[in-house]
Amino acid sequence: MHHNFTPSHYFRTIGTHPVALTVASGDTVTIACVDAHGIDGNDVEITPRGNPMSGPIAVAGVAAGDVLAVTFDALTPLRSHGWSYPSLAGNVVDPEYVRELPIAPSSKEYWDYDATTSTLRSRGTHGKSLTIAYAPMVGCFGVAPSRGEAISTATSGPYGGNMDYRFLTTGCTIYFPVAVTGALFFIGDGHLAQGCGEIGGTGVESAIAVTVTLAQAKMQAITWPRAEDATHLYAIGNARPLDQALQHATSEMHRMLIECGADATTAAVLMSQAIEYNIGNVFDPAYTVACKIAKSVLVTNGLTATFRP
Amino acid sequence: MHHNFTPSHYFRTIGTHPVALTVASGDTVTIACVDAHGIDGNDVEITPRGNPMSGPIAVAGVAAGDVLAVTFDALTPLRSHGWSYPSLAGNVVDPEYVRELPIAPSSKEYWDYDATTSTLRSRGTHGKSLTIAYAPMVGCFGVAPSRGEAISTATSGPYGGNMDYRFLTTGCTIYFPVAVTGALFFIGDGHLAQGCGEIGGTGVESAIAVTVTLAQAKMQAITWPRAEDATHLYAIGNARPLDQALQHATSEMHRMLIECGADATTAAVLMSQAIEYNIGNVFDPAYTVACKIAKSVLVTNGLTATFRP
Amino acid sequence: MHHNFTPSHYFRTIGTHPVALTVASGDTVTIACVDAHGIDGNDVEITPRGNPMSGPIAVAGVAAGDVLAVTFDALTPLRSHGWSYPSLAGNVVDPEYVRELPIAPSSKEYWDYDATTSTLRSRGTHGKSLTIAYAPMVGCFGVAPSRGEAISTATSGPYGGNMDYRFLTTGCTIYFPVAVTGALFFIGDGHLAQGCGEIGGTGVESAIAVTVTLAQAKMQAITWPRAEDATHLYAIGNARPLDQALQHATSEMHRMLIECGADATTAAVLMSQAIEYNIGNVFDPAYTVACKIAKSVLVTNGLTATFRP
Amino acid sequence: MHHNFTPSHYFRTIGTHPVALTVASGDTVTIACVDAHGIDGNDVEITPRGNPMSGPIAVAGVAAGDVLAVTFDALTPLRSHGWSYPSLAGNVVDPEYVRELPIAPSSKEYWDYDATTSTLRSRGTHGKSLTIAYAPMVGCFGVAPSRGEAISTATSGPYGGNMDYRFLTTGCTIYFPVAVTGALFFIGDGHLAQGCGEIGGTGVESAIAVTVTLAQAKMQAITWPRAEDATHLYAIGNARPLDQALQHATSEMHRMLIECGADATTAAVLMSQAIEYNIGNVFDPAYTVACKIAKSVLVTNGLTATFRP
Repeated sequence: MHHNFTPSHYFRTIGTHPVALTVASGDTVTIACVDAHGIDGNDVEITPRGNPMSGPIAVAGVAAGDVLAVTFDALTPLRSHGWSYPSLAGNVVDPEYVRELPIAPSSKEYWDYDATTSTLRSRGTHGKSLTIAYAPMVGCFGVAPSRGEAISTATSGPYGGNMDYRFLTTGCTIYFPVAVTGALFFIGDGHLAQGCGEIGGTGVESAIAVTVTLAQAKMQAITWPRAEDATHLYAIGNARPLDQALQHATSEMHRMLIECGADATTAAVLMSQAIEYNIGNVFDPAYTVACKIAKSVLVTNGLTATFRP
Repeated sequence: MHHNFTPSHYFRTIGTHPVALTVASGDTVTIACVDAHGIDGNDVEITPRGNPMSGPIAVAGVAAGDVLAVTFDALTPLRSHGWSYPSLAGNVVDPEYVRELPIAPSSKEYWDYDATTSTLRSRGTHGKSLTIAYAPMVGCFGVAPSRGEAISTATSGPYGGNMDYRFLTTGCTIYFPVAVTGALFFIGDGHLAQGCGEIGGTGVESAIAVTVTLAQAKMQAITWPRAEDATHLYAIGNARPLDQALQHATSEMHRMLIECGADATTAAVLMSQAIEYNIGNVFDPAYTVACKIAKSVLVTNGLTATFRP
Repeated sequence: MHHNFTPSHYFRTIGTHPVALTVASGDTVTIACVDAHGIDGNDVEITPRGNPMSGPIAVAGVAAGDVLAVTFDALTPLRSHGWSYPSLAGNVVDPEYVRELPIAPSSKEYWDYDATTSTLRSRGTHGKSLTIAYAPMVGCFGVAPSRGEAISTATSGPYGGNMDYRFLTTGCTIYFPVAVTGALFFIGDGHLAQGCGEIGGTGVESAIAVTVTLAQAKMQAITWPRAEDATHLYAIGNARPLDQALQHATSEMHRMLIECGADATTAAVLMSQAIEYNIGNVFDPAYTVACKIAKSVLVTNGLTATFRP
Repeated sequence: MHHNFTPSHYFRTIGTHPVALTVASGDTVTIACVDAHGIDGNDVEITPRGNPMSGPIAVAGVAAGDVLAVTFDALTPLRSHGWSYPSLAGNVVDPEYVRELPIAPSSKEYWDYDATTSTLRSRGTHGKSLTIAYAPMVGCFGVAPSRGEAISTATSGPYGGNMDYRFLTTGCTIYFPVAVTGALFFIGDGHLAQGCGEIGGTGVESAIAVTVTLAQAKMQAITWPRAEDATHLYAIGNARPLDQALQHATSEMHRMLIECGADATTAAVLMSQAIEYNIGNVFDPAYTVACKIAKSVLVTNGLTATFRP
């Protein structure tokens, strides 16, 4: 079944908030998301800034200990422009180099989306006008955390959150550990493009309509988010510093490969020679590291290469 | 001019050691490298283990403050097998997960190289036999550091060293800041394949013949290694923790883009939306992070996209 | 005015929860606190484990942007024993050394409190019986965070929380940045003693009656908690890794010394030669570092040395 | 036997350099040390800046695997003033706070030593004149590292080096793991006072005469430096980030307590409730953390409390 969901209220924490929509496992939902500053497709600020989320969407029959599979079916911009901040975060450069960075002005750099060329072009208000490829994604999504926590959408954790990992986009399924009845899915913070790390604190921020399929995954309990797309399996760690995020992701990958059919030693031997790391957000309180492995390597070696039904 | 270089002595530190070969800027050298345990192409341990280096090779006319360009022309295995350790390093998994890892046995896992299929196949002494793609690279190379230091080949720094970054391979040019007369180039620690991070402490270790062209780059002084291949420019930071390695790499990328023609603000705006990060070594005392950007993005935006002559 | 407060409900998050008691600025409250496992002075588990908090206590007239001063007047054990876990956390030792640590048994090590000798004596269920000094303190306390967050009492932040900093005890005043009307003070997790870092994950855990005076401080807005006792001023940073906690604490100390009358350069010169660091919790998601300076140094140099009324 | 040692050459790396003096185990040496800028007691720059070391001093009969005990008998200033830099390092404050720090001028702040009051008074060239207590110590000392490394005196490691830990001073014995024949002791970088962390990059830098007794310790092989003074035993970790330095120090303390007579579980139980941490250098490439425990606690519990002969 397909649902359309336009929130009447947006949340700036991910928590066990009153359910806005309940769907069945396997249903598809098209969700209107405002941008990080609460601005919608008509360029109106309809809710306060700070990564406001659409949700929560409950998935009937899903319980704590289950795994929720979120598949991105489509991302559609709700307006033809986005914006970014024209500087870099102090924490991504050498401490003394902070003095060399431009001081971020209060005004934004706007980017226009050209659907025919599939590009974004900045207006050059700050620096030179630039052209980059259109590559939409969503920065922040996940499920209600455990223990009754309500966590700021500025950060991330085992429940997902503001991971800003550009490779989680159309065609990708993300698996979340469920902590509460119904899972309670939240999403927002759309980007028309974004570099790795979101190192200026913004992608090209825009209101986006997101179409996702939400389903209970046939998978045993997981500790950290996992994902898969056409070519890779991913394990995702969210923590600061990067070293710890990498530890979470690497441990989760080892557990995942054992579920794929490898014994602990084989998994270790294979990971040493075949994994890759990507860096998601390095701007937020918690950073994001993904450990990934090509499905082709798993297939070659007789291991399970997908968790999709 | 082309040289062949087979060392009579190997070094386990990178420092201002007696020059073994002097070449002219632009010369090509084919260098015999033993593996990380000092074992050569005939399977004989000819020098003590610990990433023994071939070198130093002096490049005539190069002085402190210059930049040395090292281009990988070819990598040729000197034997038809390599080996790896069958576990993961404790520091890449969650602290309590260390107890779940296999204890690394003293024996090695061997891998056979099949040139016709361009694959490596492990013998399955530890766990199951595995097949992966042949993808040769060299783990450790660089130039003599400043201040008279002689630094263990187990680690890395501004001078290069044990970066274990798998994308620095055939077709890639790496740029090093020169600290001493002649630069003094060292290289060793060949791998027939290696996952990102070298998270088990080894790639598929083998003796390799490396053909490199060494030349003085026409480039102003740099702080951290840079690189380029057919598609990307790279800035490389070597430090622990990852956060600091990333800071070094990001700062160097910002400097590099300014040299490519961007002003400081334009460079920041572009980096926010267009850079990617890779993780090199996360096993050694110093970790490696690369910040990279597609040359196509630079060309599209009228920026210099190569430092090659 | 003095109040006695025994909660009817305990919270495992610090957030904007329904007020349990409202006091006037300057009032004193004696608060019954269960231990980290929800066990009270009669050895009955009356609420689920996980650092349950007594509170929230609202202070009338205090608003967001204000500073709440919490003075520890007295700490009184509510039972004559406490307990600890008999191992060390994996994250405080070298990764490979985790294998050398005793695996924490599910049973606890109990300690008996002898008021006449002011000592604690362990029963020796795990290892040898040990005697240490009685030195009571409270691990977790703070005020409701901003943005509607409800944060687990397993961690800490600008609002305080599970800092486990042993020198915040009787005679000490702690200053918190207030984010919501009434500040909403929470407290729990009493210890009869605790080493720096709480490196086994527990102090000597016990139910404790805490007597505190809660007052609005006459102090401009602060970013991180501050404290003072008879001899020192403190600035406290809560974050992971330690490097970042230290950065928060050091920045806050620099701001505090400027408020004490130093210009920015004088504050820097003085801090270089006169500050000390302590480490609070290194077990939780967020670690704690305190930057402190002797009041005597401030007095000698004509600077304000107290924020008490 | 007592020796006087005034170097004819100073080293800016710690390594296996030609021996300048050989002493017997148990001998005492008074060593003239220039300051961090190579300036001697007559205010003459006699060697290039960068923590020049006096040494190496070989101790006859000491071999790799042994432990060298270095006891500070006396520290005597060789001139009546020192200097410091008037700012803080960027890496010890929040990244964006770097812009708030004074830019370190090229000129120094001088401090005059008054032996009668045992104080230091700054001249107020940068900011206000300040008075602090005289508390001499030496920032950098240690023994030649393994593997033929020659390591910059700007950093530290298992061999010691630039630890800048203010509590290693007169009356303290420091134990180093010996890597080469004769140990090869180096020392320099005297301070008339220094805050924890050396967060401005300098203590009050001065030329100092150091009197040390060098002896082979009757102790089994150690991994990291240890120390003891009248009241405490210390284990010292040198690495970046602080988290790793703390891991080294905590692991070494656990090993040390086992050597003091505790079993592994008892050591863990005791450490949880009784250790303290101090922070040494947080300015250098490698940071320093000390884990310490009161000798009185060890004595109370029937454990060895000293390693002195």
